[in-house]
Amino acid sequence: MSSEEEVPQNPNSEENAEKKLSKKDLAKLERQCRRQEAAAAASAIAAVNIDDPLGVNYGEIPFNNLQSKEISCKKWTDVKDLATDLKDESVLIRGRAQTIRAVGKKMAFVVVRKEGFTVQCVLTVAQDVVSPQMVKFATSLSRESIIDIEGVVSVPAQSITGATQQVEIQVRKLYCVNRADPLPFTIEDASRSEAEIEKALQAGEQLARVHQDTRLNFRYIDTRTPANQGIFSIRYQIKNKFSQFLLSEGFREIDTPTFIAGYSEGGSAVFKLDYKGKPACLAQSPQLHKQMAVSGDFWRVFVTGPVYRAEDSNTHRHLCEFRGLDVEMEIKEHYSEVMDIIDRLFVAIFDHLNENCSKELEVIKRQYPFENLKYLPKTLRLTFEEGVQMLKVRGDEC
Amino acid sequence: MSSEEEVPQNPNSEENAEKKLSKKDLAKLERQCRRQEAAAAASAIAAVNIDDPLGVNYGEIPFNNLQSKEISCKKWTDVKDLATDLKDESVLIRGRAQTIRAVGKKMAFVVVRKEGFTVQCVLTVAQDVVSPQMVKFATSLSRESIIDIEGVVSVPAQSITGATQQVEIQVRKLYCVNRADPLPFTIEDASRSEAEIEKALQAGEQLARVHQDTRLNFRYIDTRTPANQGIFSIRYQIKNKFSQFLLSEGFREIDTPTFIAGYSEGGSAVFKLDYKGKPACLAQSPQLHKQMAVSGDFWRVFVTGPVYRAEDSNTHRHLCEFRGLDVEMEIKEHYSEVMDIIDRLFVAIFDHLNENCSKELEVIKRQYPFENLKYLPKTLRLTFEEGVQMLKVRGDEC
Repeated sequence: MSSEEEVPQNPNSEENAEKKLSKKDLAKLERQCRRQEAAAAASAIAAVNIDDPLGVNYGEIPFNNLQSKEISCKKWTDVKDLATDLKDESVLIRGRAQTIRAVGKKMAFVVVRKEGFTVQCVLTVAQDVVSPQMVKFATSLSRESIIDIEGVVSVPAQSITGATQQVEIQVRKLYCVNRADPLPFTIEDASRSEAEIEKALQAGEQLARVHQDTRLNFRYIDTRTPANQGIFSIRYQIKNKFSQFLLSEGFREIDTPTFIAGYSEGGSAVFKLDYKGKPACLAQSPQLHKQMAVSGDFWRVFVTGPVYRAEDSNTHRHLCEFRGLDVEMEIKEHYSEVMDIIDRLFVAIFDHLNENCSKELEVIKRQYPFENLKYLPKTLRLTFEEGVQMLKVRGDEC
Repeated sequence: MSSEEEVPQNPNSEENAEKKLSKKDLAKLERQCRRQEAAAAASAIAAVNIDDPLGVNYGEIPFNNLQSKEISCKKWTDVKDLATDLKDESVLIRGRAQTIRAVGKKMAFVVVRKEGFTVQCVLTVAQDVVSPQMVKFATSLSRESIIDIEGVVSVPAQSITGATQQVEIQVRKLYCVNRADPLPFTIEDASRSEAEIEKALQAGEQLARVHQDTRLNFRYIDTRTPANQGIFSIRYQIKNKFSQFLLSEGFREIDTPTFIAGYSEGGSAVFKLDYKGKPACLAQSPQLHKQMAVSGDFWRVFVTGPVYRAEDSNTHRHLCEFRGLDVEMEIKEHYSEVMDIIDRLFVAIFDHLNENCSKELEVIKRQYPFENLKYLPKTLRLTFEEGVQMLKVRGDEC
């Protein structure tokens, strides 16, 4: 520890000393503390890279330096916000080291990922900036380690294909916050589409395929794939737009009890439990309470809560527990009033997704191809008979 | 039924006839149908009030007339939107008859309520507009019946104290959609504060007090009180602002499983159930899955789902099932980052309520008095020791 000025250290006089301190003194004291902390942090890292004059610019952050000590007010940038308007600016990012690639001993590329967005970071040996030891440290990182990178944003001449962001970072500092253990599978392997695997196979290359069981056993790794990140984003955007649209239409959200004394629908597929000595069921639907709410002067309500069904079917469409987006409303004169709300609700959700989640849709499609939704003219409403007819034709085709 | 023109009635030729009809024919047919329906509806009501030339303007709507038959495109106004800017305009409203008061045989007042908002509707006998029989019909309505009123908005000279809306409706038409059965208690009785009851008692008047058990047995009636309507509105506004604020801060909403194989916290207060032959618990917290999500590249998440605790304590602060507003985030350097989010989250929620729910807060306060929240300067943050000291002082005061 190196300190330029002396700080009052006598614990007995501390309280009195603090009371007497003016704002100016306090500010001075704070600056002092910060310098000490920074020096301590730097020296801890430097101790590891003792043979390198630039050793302070990289390394593992010692565990005790990760504890909350001071509010540094450092400015962090999110990977998703890295764009060409930041050209030549110095930025500080945190994310996972998705891939690490060495090009000889003087250059390395680290792709950093956060929330499904990736940026390519470049280390090039240069005097007084990046040492060969720093490049070596970078290439020694394990995949999925959490790292902090400070560097300057640059815009390459060609468009970048290996990362989502169209800028690079010229690395100045690189610290590892938490080194990842060896992984059960890589994010790259988990992100491939079936088509890619098939294509490689035909070219004679056997690519790793990550199976459902492995994915579910390591769910916290599987959720890191771009497609899964996109699916989760779209899921909450749907729930969010559902709520916002209905609120704007005079609906109110209620949360209905899931412990009920009997069955909500039928009775064959219900989870039963002991409720303090009395038999209870988990609600298969918020139906009863929604209707009570409409009678209870709510007129229009919606629910986004859990629904429980003890069904034995093992299909994608049967779940023991799911979140139901559920609506109940007064009909003034005609059931078309409900159809009108549902019509506009779906269009509002799809419009919202197209406007706000085009990147996510693109990313999902890359791994799990799907057809875009087609918009029908808004005035078109099928009759029941027309709907049945369409299903019959579809059924014949299958 | 009186029809001016003949409609093709032969069922065998129906399909062919429809195919041959032009758009013009269809529109004509539609107009015809509407006239028939309207005539049928009017005649059904008129049949009841057969001795009154104005009999078509009021009555019970026959049950089969409530079925979806035609899209009338009638324009409905919500009670909460009835304001002085609608003066002299004709409006159509639906709501519950909260109170009905006759003034002789020539005048009646009906207070109509919807979603906690009320408006006073006036029937005054006038030639060719309101008959004495219509006044009699109005005063025969039971409280809480659902009624439709068509009338002209008027603005009285004095301010209105018996209703929330500062306009009256001069009734022209009055139909009863659904007559309410006798009630276990009135909304008025259920809306009184303890102070009101005490004050009346001291003046020698014993007012009805609706007890908790009765309220819970008739929850769908109790939720109609202004205070309960306000509480529900504020509840969903809090949940909504919680979500919107966190979304704007880069959080994503996730829904976490509530079936888990073990205990989330401790183990004494957990609901156990049989999950297809295996023992399972209802989650006491989304903690585990929130943390897995943060590791799974979400970095910042929130949950608004159900939490289950099989606690035996019978206090207002212990619930077997509640919705938890739960946040989990990465800390970059210091725990103050979490405090900063929580700080601003609460201020954002309170600001939102003050801006959007002042009426609801006022109404709740009338029945359940409370002190307004005091704003502290935003820069003030208590240390742990200061917080403990404040609690000790409070404890001593109690």
